[in-house]
Amino acid sequence: MNKIKSKKSPNIAFISVSQMINILREVGVENFIAGIVEYLEEDFSRWESFDKSPRFAAHSPDGVIELMPIGDHENFSFKYVNGHPKNTQSGLQTVTAFGVLSDVATGYPLLLSEMTILTALRTAATSVMMAKYLAPKNASVMAMIGCGAQSEFQIIAFSKILNINTIRLYDIDPQAVDKCYKNLAGKGLNIIICSSAIEVVQGADIITTCTADKKNATILTSDMITKGVHINAIGGDCPGKTELEEKLLKRASIFVEYEQQTRVEGDIQQLPDNSPVTEMFHVIRGESAGRFDEEQLTIFDGVGFAIEDYSALRYLYDLVNESEQYQELELLVNPSNPRNLYGLALD
Amino acid sequence: MNKIKSKKSPNIAFISVSQMINILREVGVENFIAGIVEYLEEDFSRWESFDKSPRFAAHSPDGVIELMPIGDHENFSFKYVNGHPKNTQSGLQTVTAFGVLSDVATGYPLLLSEMTILTALRTAATSVMMAKYLAPKNASVMAMIGCGAQSEFQIIAFSKILNINTIRLYDIDPQAVDKCYKNLAGKGLNIIICSSAIEVVQGADIITTCTADKKNATILTSDMITKGVHINAIGGDCPGKTELEEKLLKRASIFVEYEQQTRVEGDIQQLPDNSPVTEMFHVIRGESAGRFDEEQLTIFDGVGFAIEDYSALRYLYDLVNESEQYQELELLVNPSNPRNLYGLALD
Repeated sequence: MNKIKSKKSPNIAFISVSQMINILREVGVENFIAGIVEYLEEDFSRWESFDKSPRFAAHSPDGVIELMPIGDHENFSFKYVNGHPKNTQSGLQTVTAFGVLSDVATGYPLLLSEMTILTALRTAATSVMMAKYLAPKNASVMAMIGCGAQSEFQIIAFSKILNINTIRLYDIDPQAVDKCYKNLAGKGLNIIICSSAIEVVQGADIITTCTADKKNATILTSDMITKGVHINAIGGDCPGKTELEEKLLKRASIFVEYEQQTRVEGDIQQLPDNSPVTEMFHVIRGESAGRFDEEQLTIFDGVGFAIEDYSALRYLYDLVNESEQYQELELLVNPSNPRNLYGLALD
Repeated sequence: MNKIKSKKSPNIAFISVSQMINILREVGVENFIAGIVEYLEEDFSRWESFDKSPRFAAHSPDGVIELMPIGDHENFSFKYVNGHPKNTQSGLQTVTAFGVLSDVATGYPLLLSEMTILTALRTAATSVMMAKYLAPKNASVMAMIGCGAQSEFQIIAFSKILNINTIRLYDIDPQAVDKCYKNLAGKGLNIIICSSAIEVVQGADIITTCTADKKNATILTSDMITKGVHINAIGGDCPGKTELEEKLLKRASIFVEYEQQTRVEGDIQQLPDNSPVTEMFHVIRGESAGRFDEEQLTIFDGVGFAIEDYSALRYLYDLVNESEQYQELELLVNPSNPRNLYGLALD
């Protein structure tokens, strides 16, 4: 571990999109997600050691560019992420991301990585880590509402780590369902394609909602949901974008990453500011109950928090440093005399 | 211009340290600085079009890591910069930096560049741009107090753009003076080495202070300074780090980049919050007077502002895009179907 740091190279490790894909093929998506889950549990468990701050957002008519920084006494990380819905019209991604992991002791960046794929992996890892504490015992059926870019990662995470073997798929766009179905072929999953949200939730132990509409939508209403279910609601993740009916929220035990952020961005933006929610780190540390009753309705109102990017970058850094699967980037100067910066241009 | 953008490649342009050095050798340090000055004047002139925000700082016992974001309706930029004084003990730089320039319309990053050298260049460009409006007419002699990493860049900027032909050097460390002297040999400058701050300011039209001590130092006292001089004070740039005696500040017309930031970080942290200062964009636009009297004592209390990084990155981006002098980094995914992120890992 920390080979780059220990050899005091001023170069940083770079993981391109191709390199990330190579690593995923070698390690396996499911093992990669399982690896992040371990780092996530470790990092959520030491919640107080992080210097948490709100994300920085630069808004423009067409979208938003955000920086999500976080650090503890060892590492600092930030993610750059954009959100531009019109991009798909010109063949570009709505959301792309990259991130940096740094050494706090020297301030030097250690790793620069693509994070469009890594974010999908860490989001799946986060969902399944939360579900370990919240899903009903012996859950075997998951309903997936929304078959976009995140869907396969979520399904693979739940099948690998929670032994979910039956997946019920629904999306308003049949092409999205078809894409998801084909991508999951040959994985030993029992996949059932459904034609409505009401149909897809039948018999599900876990319901994952991951829809993309930038509005206060009602994907799930209270009357659709029976007792004892766990809802993994990750599509409602910014002001004005929600997925669950208020009445449904009021029936449930609600769990969040970081209350301050989720009050603004999550489905609970529909509830009063003093409505009861539990921050997940308490559950992970055993300080608060997760699921305590078979009939309990639980909701993870996930919006994505900077610690998750930190954990994912830390896992990736350890992984590539071990195997030396990275490209070196000469991002930092290394003059023999630190005060002779000008001499670099002269030599 | 904007070749990368126009071909809609998801790749971004990368400027490594070596590439930056190659560009500097080809373009020339003085021409590069002159190029940034043009972009700076353009950007300072449209001050209101920028979304200005305080820098984000993560403090730790050994130093600080900062993110400096800024944007307008066309571009967004941020700089990552650390400050770790103990780094020199292990052969690392106290300050290193890198930065990103993005397209606001798509949110896609366009350029990733080393910024340790680029920051020295933009700081020199900023100093000389301010001095164009503030230095006495026909100035020919500059005193340089502090011969560290910034000094040669400052001197070259002033000799190129303000026709300064005589440089008086002083540093408490004779080795630093020696390094600076050698780096400037053969540039047609009349260089005089001095043995004290009192000596170095004799006969100087412009005095640049760029010392590194992290404390409230008094490099220049009021009784050392005669009328009609311009002081380019760039070393005092964070809380608790100043260079000029309060009495000297009170005699002078003081000019700043961004008042809100300089009140906290600049030499004027010693003055009451309502002490008169002028933001330079007013002077550049001709709305406020810069130097209006031969006997006037002017001070540019420079701390470094995000617009300067934005201008420098914009200049660099146009330069390398024109000449295609960059390496492409595959930082962003480019699936044929934006919703088929998982398919990238399968193909």
